[in-house]
Amino acid sequence: MALLSPLATEIAIPACALVGIVFSLVQWLLVSRVKLTPEPRAPSSSSPGSNNNKNGYGEYLIEEEDGVNDHSVVAKCAEIQSAISEGATSFLFTEYQYVGVFMVAFAVLIFLFLGSVESFSTQSQPCTYDPSKLCKPALATAVFSTVSFLLGGFTSVVSGFLGMKIATYANARTTLEARKGVGKAFITAFRSGAVMGFLLAANGLLVLYIAINLFKLYYGDDWEGLFEAITGYGLGGSSMALFGRVGGGIYTKAADVGADLVGKVERNIPEDDPRNPAVIADNVGDNVGDIAGMGSDLFGSYAESSCAALVVASISSFGIDHDFTAMCYPLLISSMGILVCLITTLFATDFFEIKVVEEIEPALKKQLIISTILMTVGIAIVSWIALPSSFTIYNFGSQKVVKNWQLFLCVGVGLWAGLIIGFVTEYYTSNAYSPVQDVADSCRTGAATNVIFGLALGYKSVIIPIFAIAISIFVSFSFAAMYGIAVAALGMLSTIATGLAIDAYGPISDNAGGIAEMAGMSHRIRERTDALDAAGNTTAAIGKGFAIGSAALVSLALFGAFVSRAAISTVDVLTPKVFIGLIVGAMLPYWFSAMTMKSVGSAALKMVEEVRRQFNTIPGLMEGLAKPDYATCVKISTDASLKEMIPPGALVMLTPLIVGIFFGVETLSGVLAGSLVSGVQIAISASNTGGAWDNAKKYIEAGASEHARTLGPKGSEPHKAAVIGDTIGDPLKDTSGPSLNILIKLMAVESLVFAPFFATHGGLLFKIF
Amino acid sequence: MALLSPLATEIAIPACALVGIVFSLVQWLLVSRVKLTPEPRAPSSSSPGSNNNKNGYGEYLIEEEDGVNDHSVVAKCAEIQSAISEGATSFLFTEYQYVGVFMVAFAVLIFLFLGSVESFSTQSQPCTYDPSKLCKPALATAVFSTVSFLLGGFTSVVSGFLGMKIATYANARTTLEARKGVGKAFITAFRSGAVMGFLLAANGLLVLYIAINLFKLYYGDDWEGLFEAITGYGLGGSSMALFGRVGGGIYTKAADVGADLVGKVERNIPEDDPRNPAVIADNVGDNVGDIAGMGSDLFGSYAESSCAALVVASISSFGIDHDFTAMCYPLLISSMGILVCLITTLFATDFFEIKVVEEIEPALKKQLIISTILMTVGIAIVSWIALPSSFTIYNFGSQKVVKNWQLFLCVGVGLWAGLIIGFVTEYYTSNAYSPVQDVADSCRTGAATNVIFGLALGYKSVIIPIFAIAISIFVSFSFAAMYGIAVAALGMLSTIATGLAIDAYGPISDNAGGIAEMAGMSHRIRERTDALDAAGNTTAAIGKGFAIGSAALVSLALFGAFVSRAAISTVDVLTPKVFIGLIVGAMLPYWFSAMTMKSVGSAALKMVEEVRRQFNTIPGLMEGLAKPDYATCVKISTDASLKEMIPPGALVMLTPLIVGIFFGVETLSGVLAGSLVSGVQIAISASNTGGAWDNAKKYIEAGASEHARTLGPKGSEPHKAAVIGDTIGDPLKDTSGPSLNILIKLMAVESLVFAPFFATHGGLLFKIF
Repeated sequence: MALLSPLATEIAIPACALVGIVFSLVQWLLVSRVKLTPEPRAPSSSSPGSNNNKNGYGEYLIEEEDGVNDHSVVAKCAEIQSAISEGATSFLFTEYQYVGVFMVAFAVLIFLFLGSVESFSTQSQPCTYDPSKLCKPALATAVFSTVSFLLGGFTSVVSGFLGMKIATYANARTTLEARKGVGKAFITAFRSGAVMGFLLAANGLLVLYIAINLFKLYYGDDWEGLFEAITGYGLGGSSMALFGRVGGGIYTKAADVGADLVGKVERNIPEDDPRNPAVIADNVGDNVGDIAGMGSDLFGSYAESSCAALVVASISSFGIDHDFTAMCYPLLISSMGILVCLITTLFATDFFEIKVVEEIEPALKKQLIISTILMTVGIAIVSWIALPSSFTIYNFGSQKVVKNWQLFLCVGVGLWAGLIIGFVTEYYTSNAYSPVQDVADSCRTGAATNVIFGLALGYKSVIIPIFAIAISIFVSFSFAAMYGIAVAALGMLSTIATGLAIDAYGPISDNAGGIAEMAGMSHRIRERTDALDAAGNTTAAIGKGFAIGSAALVSLALFGAFVSRAAISTVDVLTPKVFIGLIVGAMLPYWFSAMTMKSVGSAALKMVEEVRRQFNTIPGLMEGLAKPDYATCVKISTDASLKEMIPPGALVMLTPLIVGIFFGVETLSGVLAGSLVSGVQIAISASNTGGAWDNAKKYIEAGASEHARTLGPKGSEPHKAAVIGDTIGDPLKDTSGPSLNILIKLMAVESLVFAPFFATHGGLLFKIF
Repeated sequence: MALLSPLATEIAIPACALVGIVFSLVQWLLVSRVKLTPEPRAPSSSSPGSNNNKNGYGEYLIEEEDGVNDHSVVAKCAEIQSAISEGATSFLFTEYQYVGVFMVAFAVLIFLFLGSVESFSTQSQPCTYDPSKLCKPALATAVFSTVSFLLGGFTSVVSGFLGMKIATYANARTTLEARKGVGKAFITAFRSGAVMGFLLAANGLLVLYIAINLFKLYYGDDWEGLFEAITGYGLGGSSMALFGRVGGGIYTKAADVGADLVGKVERNIPEDDPRNPAVIADNVGDNVGDIAGMGSDLFGSYAESSCAALVVASISSFGIDHDFTAMCYPLLISSMGILVCLITTLFATDFFEIKVVEEIEPALKKQLIISTILMTVGIAIVSWIALPSSFTIYNFGSQKVVKNWQLFLCVGVGLWAGLIIGFVTEYYTSNAYSPVQDVADSCRTGAATNVIFGLALGYKSVIIPIFAIAISIFVSFSFAAMYGIAVAALGMLSTIATGLAIDAYGPISDNAGGIAEMAGMSHRIRERTDALDAAGNTTAAIGKGFAIGSAALVSLALFGAFVSRAAISTVDVLTPKVFIGLIVGAMLPYWFSAMTMKSVGSAALKMVEEVRRQFNTIPGLMEGLAKPDYATCVKISTDASLKEMIPPGALVMLTPLIVGIFFGVETLSGVLAGSLVSGVQIAISASNTGGAWDNAKKYIEAGASEHARTLGPKGSEPHKAAVIGDTIGDPLKDTSGPSLNILIKLMAVESLVFAPFFATHGGLLFKIF
């Protein structure tokens, strides 16, 4: 059996999770040393050694720095920060109230549907995969699935909420540090991102680990039932993520588009100008959409891929032979990931220092490379100590013999595919390379060519990621069937802490720039935060690339688990039931995108009207003599996003139920496969198109090269065309694109949870005719 | 057996085809009565009765008409017409030369690949589906497939070329008739469209019929081999269509976008202004892209669905029992379609008369409804007389019993699905309904919201067509397996003559408007042609809807035929080989669209530079004192389109070959299914988005309602935003969108033709590892 004893496994997993939590608290502590109180004091709170710390916490007076002694600026930053933080907190609380009602209702549905499989009988039943043994009744699965569903939802809320908290805590601090130099600002933003990354990874792991151990008290040796019930955890996580992504996405882009359309285009005032009434809503949006939404999304992927791997493992030799260490292989991979990311983070914050703007993007890129290389070694170690040299994996009705090195390759191929997707995304969305520069160049002939080139860029950017995903699927599928796919997804997500750190860094920098503008800080500060933000756009696109790539693998793994659990042995495209599912499934991402884009459009129009109204009716607003009414804009975004998230949410949640109940599991298989292969393309192209437009605009604004200067400056015709592209890209990259991840994952995990019900009672329409 | 004797079948098919050809010649004759020579003469050429004809041919002088006596205008129209016709003819000739080389090369490839299946042996072999009999050798299939490939290509060329000829013949005549009223102009444009529709439908049927009869001389009773060889006809037709669509699409949109960007946006001169150097190229483009390209495309669909039906029938009871009439069922459906469309056409040209602009769209819509209702009866008759009451259809290894009324339902469901798709397309692209009006309204807040709303509209417009297609697939698949799908596609295409008539009517009206503008005719004339054109945008979108819907069914039928011929019994998504095919296949439409959109963008940029150069360097051009150099712009479009059509063409033609040879038939099945379900969505959404933007712009320009007037007039900020949307939509609706039909069909038919080769020699990569 495995080298690692079950006891060692029982200790290692929570230990790694705790290390992650402690590390993130240390990072938080370091960020908190940047004071938001205006009084200059002796650095009493910092230890003597930290005065020599090259990261400079505790220092506060260096001659060449910008306005460090301007106390009113600090006070203003603190004030803006608290407005943003309050807005974000109040929105999330309202959102969670709505979603809470949904979660409770859906929990009841899960209980009723799963309980009805064996008519709520409390008798033990013969196990599905080994009828000679007795397993717990379907009612137990119903109860525990409901519990784990609620647990997953709760963990997702905590992940998103904490991320938002640290982000709104760090944004003004990043602005203040930007006075001391770009390196300091970078470290503050990055550390804050790391807090979120580590908290989320460690939290997700720990809760899952505890849930498994608690459920085991009841299930005992019935691991099949235990891990079936655990799948609810993934469903809960993803359901929350759906509303977080969609609601947050609509919020942030309604505010952003509305603010830009009136401010930049009509009134010709800069982005984030404090005179713009929607500016606070815009900054709140970054935190609730890009931070809380992204956090829930990646937590969902992580929870789902773990659940998919566990449920397949439970009916493989690991589960049948009750090999606890091997069973926990997915959790051990995640534990190793936390340690690897910890070391990787130090490369950004302690081992090197950023001095100039040009070093930001390479530093973030290095994070990806270092974590991938270290993690490859980490996976090898885990595969060596936690797996028997040979074992069998359940493969749609048969058992497939797998070697431990083959499973290592499965995880590794997912990990490296993630890196490739990251790099390709960077190439297509960073303004350091020709694709974005071409898009910027096309602005010469106006907004129309900008849009045509941008759309073409997004379409083209799909090619290599899809090949990377296809190769991972082929390798892991061939070696270890659906278990291979699930661990490949886990491989891609194993460096989630680093991925989230560099991803969350983006919106924090964006906010920092906004605060600098609103606090009336100098042009130099704004240039620094803009440079951070441009790199942030790229990392946000990379983060989305990871999220999409992993979502594709996760949903395939869930799909496989669903098929296994629904006891289908083939999903044959050449049957009418499957084919109509396939084509309708491929349509769903379009339907969903139409809803979310239209929602952003309508909400933005409302915002535009309000912003125009304020400019027209508040005397002295344009002159900066009167303050705008920020609260009304915040309210418009809040109301619109809460109202508009319901129809797309219903589409995603109801489709598997309707298809499963009326058309049965074959058609549902088709729908899952169709939405997966179609959704992943739209998601990648939408998020890269949007990222490219945003950075093409920033490329023209920054004017860093000869070519860029021929297109600029701000306010030139090409720049106006670029702004139009940027605005179009907003809902693509931050609302409809990333929400599609959740569409494909959530439909798959929901089908998996309800599989026993569909298999028993589904396909009514075909039964009637 | 069937009520209709084989002899009657042998007579009925060519008779119907000849009726169609004669009818189209009569229409041509009627169009030709509009004289392009300026001398006013007594109506000597018309018969005495026609003076009382309410369609007014032969009349030439009515008091209230506009400038009918202005002879210089007629001369100018004739001059412009000849420039357009020459440009289009010369482009098509150049294109055909290039494509001719490709066709010959590909013909050699077909011969070599198919000949190699049995190592070029001339010995008869046991039949695949009935090994007790002897069939013709693979070498014969190779030879005859090559011949039918060339024949298909040739017929496609003739179809496209004749369509272009009549369109360029009719455009100026429509302009001249517009002086007499909108009704006369409508009839001229519609009759010309009908010429093309009937020629193409009859031609395609006749050539196919003759080819079958000639091949039968060699094949005798080996119908399996005979109809396998006939599949080359579909491949030839679609290969030509690929280059026609892509080349023509790039040509037309490079010219259109280039002309608009400088003319409308920079120089503020109207569309089709004769001072714009790209204006002739733009009008040539309508004819080579929307007419010749569309013609080849629909011919390809028609040929392919017939071939798919025939090849499946040949291994069903029709083929095994040598029931010639039943075997010819697909051809009889098409024959009936010609007769039905003939009657339908009379409703537009003779039974009713259009008097006001508002009647145009309803008249075109009535065409669709009438033809569908009549055709339903027609299908019932054909199904009753041509089919035995019960027969068997080959269904992936087994034979399925089918009743004649079931097959009637298969054809009927396809036909009615086509009508639904047509109506939905009309709803989403006509400015008479709220979706386009909403898009127009969003122009208030600028181009960005216009684009967001337009994209959302396109995505949304996919929903109902996909359900319509899915239901057709389910019904026809359930009743008669792949044969059902093929005849459903034929059902949708059975009214192709009417469909093409109302579709070709669009670009002819567009050209007529251009000629009116260039000839300096009065505002009233231009308003009339604009109204025709606005209805034309909608019918063009409907035509594209039909083309896409039928392409989806056709390619599924071809896919099924491929699977049968490659002797695969299931295409299981749950195998790695198939799944990677599925996801990569779903990516191909994006790759292809990226290429074609980028091509349009680059070619348009070149055009912009040339147009700007001419405005800057030709003195007196803006003042209308000097003539621009139209020829250079025509050359730029020609060169760009010929150069740029190669990469996307290569992608489509090489993908099945590479996948088949290296990955084998399972992966290829996945690729076909993936590209089908993904491509159909992008194609529908792209063409509807583009159509909606175009008509939103026309809605603002026409200012026909109170709401529209608040957005206008021409030159207002909302109008400028609408122009940007229109320009973005151009490549979507006329290049990348419609080309995707061909991508999905062509890959399927190519796989079908090469199936024996792939099954024998394919999958090298998996054989090596």
